[in-house]
Amino acid sequence: MRIDIITVLPQMLEPFMNESILARAQKKGLVEIHVHNLRDYTLDKWKRVDDYPYGGFAGMVMQIEPIDRCISALKAERDYDEIIFTSPDGEQFNQHVANDLSMKENIIILAGHYKGIDQRVRDHLITREISIGDFVLTGGELPAAVMADAIVRLIPGVIGDEQSAFSDCFQDDLLSAPIYTRPAEYKGWRVPDILLSGHEAKIKEWEMEQAIARTKALRPDLLK
Amino acid sequence: MRIDIITVLPQMLEPFMNESILARAQKKGLVEIHVHNLRDYTLDKWKRVDDYPYGGFAGMVMQIEPIDRCISALKAERDYDEIIFTSPDGEQFNQHVANDLSMKENIIILAGHYKGIDQRVRDHLITREISIGDFVLTGGELPAAVMADAIVRLIPGVIGDEQSAFSDCFQDDLLSAPIYTRPAEYKGWRVPDILLSGHEAKIKEWEMEQAIARTKALRPDLLK
Repeated sequence: MRIDIITVLPQMLEPFMNESILARAQKKGLVEIHVHNLRDYTLDKWKRVDDYPYGGFAGMVMQIEPIDRCISALKAERDYDEIIFTSPDGEQFNQHVANDLSMKENIIILAGHYKGIDQRVRDHLITREISIGDFVLTGGELPAAVMADAIVRLIPGVIGDEQSAFSDCFQDDLLSAPIYTRPAEYKGWRVPDILLSGHEAKIKEWEMEQAIARTKALRPDLLK
Repeated sequence: MRIDIITVLPQMLEPFMNESILARAQKKGLVEIHVHNLRDYTLDKWKRVDDYPYGGFAGMVMQIEPIDRCISALKAERDYDEIIFTSPDGEQFNQHVANDLSMKENIIILAGHYKGIDQRVRDHLITREISIGDFVLTGGELPAAVMADAIVRLIPGVIGDEQSAFSDCFQDDLLSAPIYTRPAEYKGWRVPDILLSGHEAKIKEWEMEQAIARTKALRPDLLK
């Protein structure tokens, strides 16, 4: 899989690519991630990629031309399954979307910045708008990193213990059961006896009961 | 405002603190952000902060002791309004939560990692669990960065153009109207005439109509 991220702040994303699971996945040859500086694609002599909005509104807006030039350059090299724009009003990112995207060959993630992006980019150049939630961030860099992390860890071989990804929260629309590690008692707070019992079948049963009970209590919407 | 982030991967968060809006806010003296390496708080001679889960499950679990020692050290220095754990099954982070947290004095964000965290941390040491969405990430570092970004940009004075934050998506439970910048025509795609008309009152009216229409079409749930 290959992920191309287009941004005005590559220096914000690069350290993340070199520290996290993304670094490990790249070293294993399971994914290629390329961060592109949008300013390399402008013809403006001051390397500006934004301008004032029409209509007298506040904030700066990302221009269509450098984005079009960057996306076109990438598309000339290979076919892309999706060209995603990170937007707070896009489709909600969730584990199903992450599963779906983890099976693609090549995707572009365009990180918005400033007040927003020229609407014509959204109308004509991208294939999908995805939001990581109902909140506003300074830019799309963190959402791009979040999506890359959620997607890449699902690619077989990226996480050492594959079982670990299968038993994740949300993979079967259930929250996880509580987990505990040593010590068995800390400041009077004890690990549930069942987990210390060694009775494998009963522990599995307890885990499922707990997962269902937690989901019912905290996220009944997931059970529908 | 002061935000303390506890993590096993400080090197993943520090570049972000030094590049983004968080850097500017700190330089202006409007916020203090401190990243703490959890490994500095373990008594283990190999600096381990995780161990195998009870019950034979897959993955590693963060231990309670180093977390308790780190939180206690911070609480000895000052009072905290919230001690937040980033968890996929917590309360959903959204713009209202960001507004609320931006008015606090001191908060701690504990970033989970590995398969999870000893349940006793969640039961006894934290005040609030917050999720940025229904997806699983390698760790809580990105959610901590996301929350910090969303919160800090709301602190008065952080964003240059304050009007810009007030007119954000979600601030009045409406999606934003489309925005455009130069050129007025690009590859045959034109900016709507109304925005070029210079008629301020009509432009404002168009903007509100568009915001309502987009919200009705894409996110009718916000209008309830």
